[in-house]
Amino acid sequence: MERLKQIAFILLNTSHGGNVGASARAMKVMGMNQLRLVEPQNHLTAEATARASGADDVLHQAQLFDDLNQAIGDCQLVLGTSSRQRDMNIPLIDMRQAATLILNRTTGGNAAILFGREKYGLTNQEVQRCHYLIQFPANPQYPSLNLAAAVQLAAYELRMTALQNSPSTEPPQPTTAVNMQKMESFYQHLLETLQQIEFIEPNNHRSLEKKLRMMFNRLQPEKYELDILRGILSKVKQKTK
Amino acid sequence: MERLKQIAFILLNTSHGGNVGASARAMKVMGMNQLRLVEPQNHLTAEATARASGADDVLHQAQLFDDLNQAIGDCQLVLGTSSRQRDMNIPLIDMRQAATLILNRTTGGNAAILFGREKYGLTNQEVQRCHYLIQFPANPQYPSLNLAAAVQLAAYELRMTALQNSPSTEPPQPTTAVNMQKMESFYQHLLETLQQIEFIEPNNHRSLEKKLRMMFNRLQPEKYELDILRGILSKVKQKTK
Repeated sequence: MERLKQIAFILLNTSHGGNVGASARAMKVMGMNQLRLVEPQNHLTAEATARASGADDVLHQAQLFDDLNQAIGDCQLVLGTSSRQRDMNIPLIDMRQAATLILNRTTGGNAAILFGREKYGLTNQEVQRCHYLIQFPANPQYPSLNLAAAVQLAAYELRMTALQNSPSTEPPQPTTAVNMQKMESFYQHLLETLQQIEFIEPNNHRSLEKKLRMMFNRLQPEKYELDILRGILSKVKQKTK
Repeated sequence: MERLKQIAFILLNTSHGGNVGASARAMKVMGMNQLRLVEPQNHLTAEATARASGADDVLHQAQLFDDLNQAIGDCQLVLGTSSRQRDMNIPLIDMRQAATLILNRTTGGNAAILFGREKYGLTNQEVQRCHYLIQFPANPQYPSLNLAAAVQLAAYELRMTALQNSPSTEPPQPTTAVNMQKMESFYQHLLETLQQIEFIEPNNHRSLEKKLRMMFNRLQPEKYELDILRGILSKVKQKTK
């Protein structure tokens, strides 16, 4: 997960402080903290702080730049987000591919993802700084992805990919699933009870038995669940004696 | 992509209109429009409309409900989002798995994803309505995913999966899965029967009811299976009168 801290999210010339605050939160919740702002218009408003919530540290530690070239100076790989088709020969990928690329290809150095203005995204000059363009899937009738929402999607895909890459440390889930011998005792108990209440006849229940077996096998009850079911059966038998 | 319109996002008892508006936008940008609100506190504030932006149609057409059972009544599959570990036997999956499950398993009927309150998420009672719990990856030091951001991630994963699936060559699986209204009638029938045979007391069965709900929700019975179970209950009631 340390690798996530080497990926900078660069917001360009944002107009709404709320979006910057929400972006800080979106990053921190996924374990990222390198927020860079190029000529933000209002990034420390009350709304910015409110929407940053517990991620105000990321907001206040954001690095400020006068121009994009400075902001990407230390980066080995630069990707731009874009909702429009561009008439440029830059490979277009989705954010999942971008996450794999960033986490697998660069080692050591920083990578950056650029997020454009709320109103019109990245300029052509900015796009020319990019090795790749990232396109998010969107409804063609309403492709208006909010800036902080795009940041959230990018941070999420990076964390998902980082998690898949890291060797699993989770121990196998303990389970109290019952063995088939216990299931068989349950089925006998169930069939006896159903006979006693005359829901089935002694020698004419093959089809129903099969359906019940398939249903409860599919359930794969835990031990305590089987205990509840058998408790109910015992009570029914007792009450209908 | 039409399938996305059969998936309801249900927001429970939200306190900030801004989050509801942003959720409407997050859904629409991914091609979804079924927003349902259970007891929202402020969902048509100026901030709600501002953050909905061009998705104010989704916001204004949101269906309002007094309680969750009504909101999920027509749904065959219910998934809850949860940031905490719960001490409940409900399968925990990530949103990518959830998207595959929703888009591949149910045909025809609605599916719903529940999003809890900003402050403390879903209550245990609400969680008991769920077949699955969805957990988003998060920084353990700051797992505070914003509500509208969670909605954005869910809608995005659904669209990504729908895009990968289409044009689907797989025929949809026929299913007779039952909706939550039918499940609720079954639970009432079950509890009445258990009271009649004195397996439970009238007002002291919360913990057992919870275990039974989780067990049978996990089973996701087919219609004919539910008919068998209800047939058994009717017979038990009749025999113990």
